[in-house]
Amino acid sequence: MKSINLTDKLAQFSDHWAPRTVADFNGHDVMVVKVKGEFNWHSHDDTDDFFMVLSGRLTIQLRDGDVVLHPGELYVVPKGVEHCPYAEEETHLLLIEPTGTPNTGDLETAAKIVKL
Amino acid sequence: MKSINLTDKLAQFSDHWAPRTVADFNGHDVMVVKVKGEFNWHSHDDTDDFFMVLSGRLTIQLRDGDVVLHPGELYVVPKGVEHCPYAEEETHLLLIEPTGTPNTGDLETAAKIVKL
Repeated sequence: MKSINLTDKLAQFSDHWAPRTVADFNGHDVMVVKVKGEFNWHSHDDTDDFFMVLSGRLTIQLRDGDVVLHPGELYVVPKGVEHCPYAEEETHLLLIEPTGTPNTGDLETAAKIVKL
Repeated sequence: MKSINLTDKLAQFSDHWAPRTVADFNGHDVMVVKVKGEFNWHSHDDTDDFFMVLSGRLTIQLRDGDVVLHPGELYVVPKGVEHCPYAEEETHLLLIEPTGTPNTGDLETAAKIVKL
């Protein structure tokens, strides 16, 4: 029985856009990820997408406008809604998605998710 | 399209052990709550229980020992596992549970959850 310290988990890797699972919750992966630069436009047909900023700043570009997240802020992209995350500086996030969700709609990407 | 700032949400109420929903995620309520003192021993038969500390310190008492959470730390109590949260000082949490989950197994309590 040990708490999960997100800063400690983030210290264990340095690559970008490669989420690590830190806990399981109701069939979802609770993940941390480091991001920098622009991801790509994508949507998830079967799941909402949970983003919370731990450090840095994340812009979630949506077709209707941008959502900018600072530390302590979160946003849920509803399923089916196209989005494209962007971070000017390295930004650390908490993500929650159903276990096995491809992060770009690409199954190969989902397979890369590593448990810490 | 606006980010959800958890500090702003927490500033809107002051009562303890009364979660407020700030977002919906895959049939779950994403909630903030202020806690102080001891809750009660309970378990959820149908859901894991997600706790993340935003400020303060939370002790999740389990029958096998305690988990102590500081800011930036999280813990998922697996479904069916008895637990009793305790906070010596006022502590602010992010909680995630399926929409409508009674927080003590008491349906009356669940009905009190308010959207912010």
